Amino acid sequence: MSSSLVSGATGPARQASPSTRRRNLGAVLREVHRDGAVSRAELAERMGVNRSTILSLIVSLAATGLVREEPATATGRAGRPSLVVRAESGRAYVLAFDVAVDRLVAARVGLGGIVLERKEAARRRGQDDLDEVTGVLTAFGDALVTAAPPDAACVGIGMSYCGLIRAADGKVRLAPTMGWTDLDIGPALGRRLGLGLPVAVGNEAHLGALAEHVRGAGAGSRNLVYLHGDVGVGGGIIVGGKLLDGDEGYAAELGHMIVNPYDGRPCNCGSHGCLEAEVGEPALLESAGRAGGPLGRDGVRAVVTAAENGDAAARDALDRVGGWLGIGVVNLINLFNPGVVVFGGMLSEIYRGAAPRVGARVRAGGLPVSRERVALRTAALGYDATLMGAAELGFAPLLADPLGVMDHA
Amino acid sequence: MSSSLVSGATGPARQASPSTRRRNLGAVLREVHRDGAVSRAELAERMGVNRSTILSLIVSLAATGLVREEPATATGRAGRPSLVVRAESGRAYVLAFDVAVDRLVAARVGLGGIVLERKEAARRRGQDDLDEVTGVLTAFGDALVTAAPPDAACVGIGMSYCGLIRAADGKVRLAPTMGWTDLDIGPALGRRLGLGLPVAVGNEAHLGALAEHVRGAGAGSRNLVYLHGDVGVGGGIIVGGKLLDGDEGYAAELGHMIVNPYDGRPCNCGSHGCLEAEVGEPALLESAGRAGGPLGRDGVRAVVTAAENGDAAARDALDRVGGWLGIGVVNLINLFNPGVVVFGGMLSEIYRGAAPRVGARVRAGGLPVSRERVALRTAALGYDATLMGAAELGFAPLLADPLGVMDHA
Repeated sequence: MSSSLVSGATGPARQASPSTRRRNLGAVLREVHRDGAVSRAELAERMGVNRSTILSLIVSLAATGLVREEPATATGRAGRPSLVVRAESGRAYVLAFDVAVDRLVAARVGLGGIVLERKEAARRRGQDDLDEVTGVLTAFGDALVTAAPPDAACVGIGMSYCGLIRAADGKVRLAPTMGWTDLDIGPALGRRLGLGLPVAVGNEAHLGALAEHVRGAGAGSRNLVYLHGDVGVGGGIIVGGKLLDGDEGYAAELGHMIVNPYDGRPCNCGSHGCLEAEVGEPALLESAGRAGGPLGRDGVRAVVTAAENGDAAARDALDRVGGWLGIGVVNLINLFNPGVVVFGGMLSEIYRGAAPRVGARVRAGGLPVSRERVALRTAALGYDATLMGAAELGFAPLLADPLGVMDHA
Repeated sequence: MSSSLVSGATGPARQASPSTRRRNLGAVLREVHRDGAVSRAELAERMGVNRSTILSLIVSLAATGLVREEPATATGRAGRPSLVVRAESGRAYVLAFDVAVDRLVAARVGLGGIVLERKEAARRRGQDDLDEVTGVLTAFGDALVTAAPPDAACVGIGMSYCGLIRAADGKVRLAPTMGWTDLDIGPALGRRLGLGLPVAVGNEAHLGALAEHVRGAGAGSRNLVYLHGDVGVGGGIIVGGKLLDGDEGYAAELGHMIVNPYDGRPCNCGSHGCLEAEVGEPALLESAGRAGGPLGRDGVRAVVTAAENGDAAARDALDRVGGWLGIGVVNLINLFNPGVVVFGGMLSEIYRGAAPRVGARVRAGGLPVSRERVALRTAALGYDATLMGAAELGFAPLLADPLGVMDHA
């Protein structure tokens, strides 16, 4: 992955402009935040700037406590070992929140994507009262901030929400079981936390894609498709290294591709035969004859385990769901020519149980030029992909202007 | 649309670096090439640079004959009228070639996207001999160059090809009736033309999207989906102002979305029920009982006209095809949240005859947040969208480095 660092200096004699230096500081911090530790030499090469420029940037970041330098572990190469620049997770952290269909999660996440502390509560399906939800999140947030070391600064707040989010203002436009709405959950939580920081809100699957791209199953890829199962099915798509957002932030709703136009199951969106309707949790549990049993991850896992143990109904249900999922994946491969397709949330369980069926569909319907090089993987960050994506939202201001944000933290 | 011009000077005192100045010259020329004529004031504002910088850029471009300044037509505003900067179409031109399934087209296209001269020949279906095809194109190219004024310079060559093109080297990987191949048509044509210029090759639907985005039905949009009918169905998609390419250039193959998984017609790609199989020319003509009649545009137009005149078989065929097309459009709207969907090539005829059916599908299956603001349109550049996209490929080097290219032209 290349960095968009702007070289402000072709030699030590020329002074970079303040905006160039700010961009360069952000670019160095992004590299270190993403990779954990990077050598000076590697940073200089990735950014196409000379060593004196890199050194000066590192010195500034180290002085604020955002990075530290230390000798690289032995590489077996001759000569003086290069120093590595490592992200300091103790100095700057974000609060990350995840409002999923059936759980509420909060975490303090340090620079470098290190989860320092994590809290989770179950969310009743239909627990949609804004005050109640923000109340739980606020209590979590307060406790996380209180437990932080005194010299650690909260530099941002991000939230993953299981609904359609308008990019312009972060409003929730559609939420499961709530229908069409105009929910201002970000400002509501921000007021109650009282940290003087805005709460950036994103769609859960978009954020899952972001996290898997930065430090998960799609690290290093340019084009990635992420399918997220959270009762329904959402999507996040990385195009040329950037999140696909569309005109207003509603892009990548791959759960509402119509895959079954004939006798498709009714979908929450009002249509029929959407991918979500055919491969979401209710479709799997009903097909397996387990609609009355446990819901959520436990219910989905039970079907996969039963199929592994020879339960014919569970096997048939997974084959059925896998067939529809495969059609969806075929369409996404042919549309996006991605390097990697990632299955996250409950779809990671379903994919584990239905991989042969999905693979057969892909071989039958994917264009050879596009399918031959694509990797199909489960999310490396597991169920925390969405939470880690929320943390990335929270880190965005710091990564855009490290010293400016630390001055005010 | 914003320009990515880099401000190299915050005042007349500071001298821009050569690379900054090159980028700025390219940015000015791109604006003028796209819009035909832009006022000095508007250029300065779009680019966020001061008037003295703009003036100096315009003077350089005018000295090479690429632009001219002239007084704007009266605007009704008081005060001295701003000068407009207009693209000169007579000084620099490109050769644009279009290898479609059943025709071969070539044109000399001037800066500003002005078609100065155009030549066309029918291509027999199955006329796939590389020597024969490049022979026709070379004769066209030679004649176009010979007819150009003596002071006009050929600055680039672009080709639209009706197949899958590998981005890395421009090789044709899949072509209709030829199957999987590795056709080096760009270098072959370049050698025969002998102009010392490479031939940039792109997929016809990608180039149609590019042209409709630059100067067609999607001008001003950030996100655009273009569906192109040329016997089969191709696609080109603009994401955030840039062409979606995927890992190797094969993205946007929307013709190979599976829309009919049950009793889908066999597709040329080897799968069944692809959008191309359900809405391409053969599907329409066979459904209308006209498989033995005229092919191509004439055949498709005849079905649309017959349906308008009350022919029940033609009406039913258009309804059937429109229904599948609508499912494809629903999926694309939900995936891309585009501002505009454009139907080009033969699909513009089909859309004209099936718009109500397509619209009904979109209302039933498109997410309200995404479908409420999207415009469905036919291509403004008609059947020449692909040719005009090829011209844009040809202009790319000039727009990246205007003076450098003109020095060598």
